[in-house]
Amino acid sequence: MKRYIVIMAGGVGSRFWPASTESRPKQFIDILGIGKSLLRLTFERSLQIVGPDEIIVVTHEQYKDLVLQDLPEMRPDNILCEPSRNNTAPCIAYAALHIAAKEGNAVFAVLPSDHVIMYEDVFSEKMIKAFDIAATEPAIVTLGISPTRPDTGYGYIRKGTQVQEEAYRVDSFKEKPNLATAETYLASGEYVWNAGIFIWSTNTIIGAFKKHAAQIIDTLAADSAVYNTNLEQAYINSVYPQTEKISIDYAILEKYEQVYTIPADIGWSDLGTWASLFDYMDKDNSGNVVQATTTVLDNVTNCIIKTSHSKDIIIKDLHNYIIVDEENALLIYPKDQEQEIKQAIQLLNK
Amino acid sequence: MKRYIVIMAGGVGSRFWPASTESRPKQFIDILGIGKSLLRLTFERSLQIVGPDEIIVVTHEQYKDLVLQDLPEMRPDNILCEPSRNNTAPCIAYAALHIAAKEGNAVFAVLPSDHVIMYEDVFSEKMIKAFDIAATEPAIVTLGISPTRPDTGYGYIRKGTQVQEEAYRVDSFKEKPNLATAETYLASGEYVWNAGIFIWSTNTIIGAFKKHAAQIIDTLAADSAVYNTNLEQAYINSVYPQTEKISIDYAILEKYEQVYTIPADIGWSDLGTWASLFDYMDKDNSGNVVQATTTVLDNVTNCIIKTSHSKDIIIKDLHNYIIVDEENALLIYPKDQEQEIKQAIQLLNK
Repeated sequence: MKRYIVIMAGGVGSRFWPASTESRPKQFIDILGIGKSLLRLTFERSLQIVGPDEIIVVTHEQYKDLVLQDLPEMRPDNILCEPSRNNTAPCIAYAALHIAAKEGNAVFAVLPSDHVIMYEDVFSEKMIKAFDIAATEPAIVTLGISPTRPDTGYGYIRKGTQVQEEAYRVDSFKEKPNLATAETYLASGEYVWNAGIFIWSTNTIIGAFKKHAAQIIDTLAADSAVYNTNLEQAYINSVYPQTEKISIDYAILEKYEQVYTIPADIGWSDLGTWASLFDYMDKDNSGNVVQATTTVLDNVTNCIIKTSHSKDIIIKDLHNYIIVDEENALLIYPKDQEQEIKQAIQLLNK
Repeated sequence: MKRYIVIMAGGVGSRFWPASTESRPKQFIDILGIGKSLLRLTFERSLQIVGPDEIIVVTHEQYKDLVLQDLPEMRPDNILCEPSRNNTAPCIAYAALHIAAKEGNAVFAVLPSDHVIMYEDVFSEKMIKAFDIAATEPAIVTLGISPTRPDTGYGYIRKGTQVQEEAYRVDSFKEKPNLATAETYLASGEYVWNAGIFIWSTNTIIGAFKKHAAQIIDTLAADSAVYNTNLEQAYINSVYPQTEKISIDYAILEKYEQVYTIPADIGWSDLGTWASLFDYMDKDNSGNVVQATTTVLDNVTNCIIKTSHSKDIIIKDLHNYIIVDEENALLIYPKDQEQEIKQAIQLLNK
């Protein structure tokens, strides 16, 4: 069965201000300082599994140009544009209808565009396994990340009975736990992290929508003859905003009867916070993550120092701070209080 | 007797990095955040005493364009350009020869371009008094700033006998003292600060050079017929670099027999350090000096926060820091350690 990978690249990434802004969110930024955006890394990772024509990016229409700049080898008609932000369920339903119109029944994976995966070989291997299952059973397959710490920032999946060599039936999805609960999860060995990576066939997911989220699929499929014609975008622009704004987790995953998870040790991070980026990156001898051309740091430890442009930076006596300098903004913030940055940004705009 | 004011604007202002850089030093910057550079303020202050044609700016040749931009009403031939940095004595000798060639004997004042004077009416009044003395006696006159604290960053002048209603003979010049000595000076009432403001006639200062710093005046006056001709700049370019590099204080003031000081309470600061700027400026309720368009400060106190371009700034939990953001540089430094910034800049350039 034909395989597709759908990369979701419509998020606004507000937690990485000022590196990430609404006009250029996190997935379009070289946040790791390695010369490639997270989206670009996701695209290249996908090319190890499918061909370039089988990669689809779904994004908000305001980011279409950013996607084309970042992925110039993509076919423009493989970039699907949302006219409004309606969360992940409508976005996935749209991709499913688009692929189904082109290929009939096919299998496709959905990947976030702003995560990091270190072990790409393991990732490819697990994905192929997941594609195989999705092609032969009406199952929704997720990659479940083997947890390495009692993280309270991730959703958890409780594994049930083993159904295949590497796959387990999903017993239940768990919201972000408190620390005590997360420690219990970790100790039990029964849980994996929900990384937002899903694999299914078009028949399976469209069927699941019809059963559990009919409003969305009915709205988008009212005139399914338009898909893969030059009427598609105008049609989407008119109907998409009317779909229910809901995540795929709530709309489908928690209700669907046949969800599997393949435990995957792929070196994954959602890079959801500056602290998670900090944990992930190489550090200097003082424990600083430095992404800047020229710096003189004196008694500066465990800081993130990041600027996207050529700049001389001198800092003295600072510990555990996030220092991010961008053309239009400067952030100097204690690392352990980054959850408050969002409120500070709202005060800026008053 | 004709009056001139010579503004010295050739310094590099390295202590205000990164706001001040060698390509645009302190005197050309709106360091007070009021829409005018320190040079511009000095020029406008001078216009209260003399006409625009009687104001001369001496600067390094690399800053000629900056002077013209900042003072568009100046006659270009009133901007004297040093081809090399040879300290203040050669600079003043050059100005004296230039004025003497034009006016014969005239009185002129020398003003630094990067200081602040708050009480401009008092300043004008004292300057006119000084001009009167310099026109009638072969005296070197300085304005002596009445000290308000035992500052260890300034040179001091010990007043001797009173020679006129407001003028005292200078007993001696004192280098920057330590704190105990400065406290003694302050308590005695016998000392004033040396602000680098001098008034004399061309005859007096040229005569003083001939007696105490003949190398300088002989080098510059070897062909005095060139002054005020279109050969002047080429001549200066060839001879000026050969003059002794020495301050006017060492070369003349400490040796000259008839130096007077007029105590002047003019709200003066040399703005020699970030801390002195901080002391001088208006503060928010948390004691911060803020020169930035949009800021959200949370638990930030007694900081200087300065950026020359439109930027959103969010800072939390910082006290007594200097935070200066410029296009090519960022400084985050404890205010009480600013004397170390110079060394850090040298490390940057390694």
